[in-house]
Amino acid sequence: MPHAASPSPTPDQSPTLGQYLIDRLTELGVDHVFGIPGDYVLSLYKMLEQSPIKLVGTTREDSAGFAADAYARVHGLGCVCVTYSVGGLSACNSIAGAYAEKSPVIVISGSPGMGERVHHPMLHHQVKDYDTQYKVYRQLTAASAVLDRPETAFSEIDRVLDVVVRNKRPVYLEIPRDQIHVRRIGPRRPPKPEPPSDPHALREALDEATERLTKAKRPAILADVEIHRFRLLKELLELAESTGMPIASTILGKSVLSEAHPLFAGVYEGGMGRPEVTELVETADCLLMLGCFLTDINLGIFTAKLDPSRCIDATSEHLRIGHHHYRDVRLDDFIRGLIARNLKVQRTPVPKRSNPFAEIDMGSGDSPTTSPRLFSRLNRFLADHKETTVIADIGDSLFGAMDLEMHRHTEFLSPAYYTSMGFSVPAAVGAGLANPSARVLVIVGDGAFQMTGMELSTIARHGLNPIVIVLNNHGYTTERLLLEGDFNDVHGWAFHRIPDVLGTGLGIEIRTMGELETGLARALGNTGSFTILNVHLDPLDHSPALDRLAGKLAAIVDKRADAS
Amino acid sequence: MPHAASPSPTPDQSPTLGQYLIDRLTELGVDHVFGIPGDYVLSLYKMLEQSPIKLVGTTREDSAGFAADAYARVHGLGCVCVTYSVGGLSACNSIAGAYAEKSPVIVISGSPGMGERVHHPMLHHQVKDYDTQYKVYRQLTAASAVLDRPETAFSEIDRVLDVVVRNKRPVYLEIPRDQIHVRRIGPRRPPKPEPPSDPHALREALDEATERLTKAKRPAILADVEIHRFRLLKELLELAESTGMPIASTILGKSVLSEAHPLFAGVYEGGMGRPEVTELVETADCLLMLGCFLTDINLGIFTAKLDPSRCIDATSEHLRIGHHHYRDVRLDDFIRGLIARNLKVQRTPVPKRSNPFAEIDMGSGDSPTTSPRLFSRLNRFLADHKETTVIADIGDSLFGAMDLEMHRHTEFLSPAYYTSMGFSVPAAVGAGLANPSARVLVIVGDGAFQMTGMELSTIARHGLNPIVIVLNNHGYTTERLLLEGDFNDVHGWAFHRIPDVLGTGLGIEIRTMGELETGLARALGNTGSFTILNVHLDPLDHSPALDRLAGKLAAIVDKRADAS
Repeated sequence: MPHAASPSPTPDQSPTLGQYLIDRLTELGVDHVFGIPGDYVLSLYKMLEQSPIKLVGTTREDSAGFAADAYARVHGLGCVCVTYSVGGLSACNSIAGAYAEKSPVIVISGSPGMGERVHHPMLHHQVKDYDTQYKVYRQLTAASAVLDRPETAFSEIDRVLDVVVRNKRPVYLEIPRDQIHVRRIGPRRPPKPEPPSDPHALREALDEATERLTKAKRPAILADVEIHRFRLLKELLELAESTGMPIASTILGKSVLSEAHPLFAGVYEGGMGRPEVTELVETADCLLMLGCFLTDINLGIFTAKLDPSRCIDATSEHLRIGHHHYRDVRLDDFIRGLIARNLKVQRTPVPKRSNPFAEIDMGSGDSPTTSPRLFSRLNRFLADHKETTVIADIGDSLFGAMDLEMHRHTEFLSPAYYTSMGFSVPAAVGAGLANPSARVLVIVGDGAFQMTGMELSTIARHGLNPIVIVLNNHGYTTERLLLEGDFNDVHGWAFHRIPDVLGTGLGIEIRTMGELETGLARALGNTGSFTILNVHLDPLDHSPALDRLAGKLAAIVDKRADAS
Repeated sequence: MPHAASPSPTPDQSPTLGQYLIDRLTELGVDHVFGIPGDYVLSLYKMLEQSPIKLVGTTREDSAGFAADAYARVHGLGCVCVTYSVGGLSACNSIAGAYAEKSPVIVISGSPGMGERVHHPMLHHQVKDYDTQYKVYRQLTAASAVLDRPETAFSEIDRVLDVVVRNKRPVYLEIPRDQIHVRRIGPRRPPKPEPPSDPHALREALDEATERLTKAKRPAILADVEIHRFRLLKELLELAESTGMPIASTILGKSVLSEAHPLFAGVYEGGMGRPEVTELVETADCLLMLGCFLTDINLGIFTAKLDPSRCIDATSEHLRIGHHHYRDVRLDDFIRGLIARNLKVQRTPVPKRSNPFAEIDMGSGDSPTTSPRLFSRLNRFLADHKETTVIADIGDSLFGAMDLEMHRHTEFLSPAYYTSMGFSVPAAVGAGLANPSARVLVIVGDGAFQMTGMELSTIARHGLNPIVIVLNNHGYTTERLLLEGDFNDVHGWAFHRIPDVLGTGLGIEIRTMGELETGLARALGNTGSFTILNVHLDPLDHSPALDRLAGKLAAIVDKRADAS
């Protein structure tokens, strides 16, 4: 039959396609693979089970995507393995989020064998054509391949894996199930090396940046998430420490460096953030933007005032100085080049950080829990327990968490650009396995929890011990502030009763600050399973940050076209 | 700004785009819309809330897709309304399933306004380009449009809605949020009428079919799901009753007619089904196949022996008689044409239906529940309670349910071709709202329930009263029979405790046949909320049907390419 392997010309000890893929994953440091088996991918599951890689079964494939995304953010590379269509198409949203926020996730999917396809046009799980799922994933990944013949499959694996490592964006590999045991036909073709920077463009760009930075009276750095994704924190700190330039981060890039670092100035959010950070960034006469995503959320819903004439904007995809562009200058080469210049720059004072929680009236033990009080208490919790990974879901979970002071770097995870609700609990699976030495603290609204929160099942199965704080304000509070309607309500859950369903875990209902105090203490003591705190809040209670944001968003939601 | 509406030349009383869409949905009989709001679609939600259409908020968008699919199967047309990317891309799998099984679902998504896109390249929820979601849905729908300008938007709505009504496959409409209030520019262009059958081809096909059927010694009908989708049951029955031809159905088309009908012969499943049905279908010397999907599942994993020379195979997409094809012959015209011929055909005896549950030892009250016993008991339940809609999830839930005798037509729902696990509980939302007079009985495995079962939350919110039977066999049992591994295990849930979390509902744990008896009685009495029966089964316990199926599937799963 077409495409099926003919007897291999290479010795039988050469690895099969499935084994080669597993070997490459292991070599790249993938220790865990997330997903759910299905008949089109069962053989590969069997091979994975017999490999050094640990299989982590989730309850749903989109959760596997979120878990792999979080794992990639912490560990450097993530992987999901799913079956055809019913599996792959269930993970579209979480992989799209990983694409948007540059989280390197490998999607592996089984599919009908090439042999089966010839004689049988309608196999289960099929949508339009055999390549429907492939066509969908081409829209959601940086590289993709169907490994449908042994002549090309092995080099296609190399090509696609190179992209995920270099671009930090998801890739897609589909294996027809009758190809899993084929062996390479023909010689190994080494993948193309990563293109270096254009040395002329690099030198000119460094000359210009040097001049701008050394002439500036108030230079500063704005660092975003690519610093983390491309593992450039050491370089960022070396550049900042050798020059004394203060560093602000964005909300998407929050905790790209430790917020306790003496040069850390705070999170910049345009006109919506803390004034001393806004002033630092917006009055800088040379702003060195490193790996920044200029998204609406990062820019405080377009309240940012970033004059491009004053900016050096370097990312993995472009380098813009003022209003002109350099091509083929790599972000790492640019930052290392600046370090090598031993810049002497004017010292811009690091603004004194105000405590954003200083003015909050914490009430007494009988006082009801409110969003400001809760976040203020969590801020103290983080100061006392520095080895904590915070995962903030979307909504007031994120906005309230903006001001939390993170003491280690890359310990704050949130999809702050793609903003997909339901990220946090599945992400706790990935983050917990990627870094078992940090306790995971999940902050999630009731609406977001109802989307994926039962992934606590996987957390229970693997004995992970996150502390999950549910902001139970009875609906989609962010949307209430934009446009109210019954559609913003959700059914009330007794979230603290979930341990009764899962047979493990500690659930605590919390209405007062005293109960919160006791609850946090009990959660800390419960190291053998998850803890879920069902924190009751008024439906309209929310953080001051959300208040500022919602005003801006509401103006856009109902802007009539005929009035524009 | 480009694409924003200029002052409308039509009178202001002409409907806005949002209103026009709602009017068209109402006209087509859409009474409920399923989904979750988000800022890009909030204005439309507000308009829907103020319309006669009821908004049904689900916990997740994929559940909304399943609910709308089931609603469409029962009610004739379904609709989901979601926000951009995080909403739409979460529904890919359920809409793909509706496509595969021809369930007419309209997907409506908000998206960033055309005005916003010009100045701001990175808006939240964005993946690659603004049209990423549109490109994805082009792969999953029969027609799609982005309503980005008032000159074409209104006629695009008409065009796309025509397709969902005619083709019974999902369609996609995306509304940039600043277009929701625009008014029509230019005249209304009436949509093209549906093309009629080619009268010459129709006549010749009817001549040939008449000759084959009247000459046959053992003619029979095999009816599948399109009879239901295209509302041709009356015609099917008229043709069968006027000629006396027996009717077999497929598993995907199960209950396309009442299984109590005297001409109903049983469900055909190739070599895996009941022998009398296999014999009827495979020894028919003229088999009239009406609206059949020739899928692997329908064909008993290719154990079917259907010689095309003996078949007349008419669907909404093709008409094949023997080995030749007629073009442009509509399924409804073909069936009505056959009726008009007043065929005199040989009487093929309707095989005497054996009771598939007759030989099952039901044990005593203390006997443990097993899959065969449970299905046998459910079969009696259905005989006693004929106004029941059965929804079978994938796995042994479906295979075991194959033999259940359905007493009304179209009361059996299952994604028996696309076979996406997790369909059933969300589907109970849609089926319950579409036909409140029937009690919904959900049969679902523990693995499938863990995917979407918390949609009981929406069931609770709307006061629906399905009876949910969880086949709790501690994992993916179907897969255990194909290739065993730890990856087939799932974490154990105390499913009967879910009412404690949701604050309503009745949960019952069942280990013996006596407890099952009591449980079903209590469920029947509990008409005000859902009932969930957590039925414990041995991990390897399963229906005889699954046994037969698994053997065939396992042979394919681990078929080595180099051995093929």
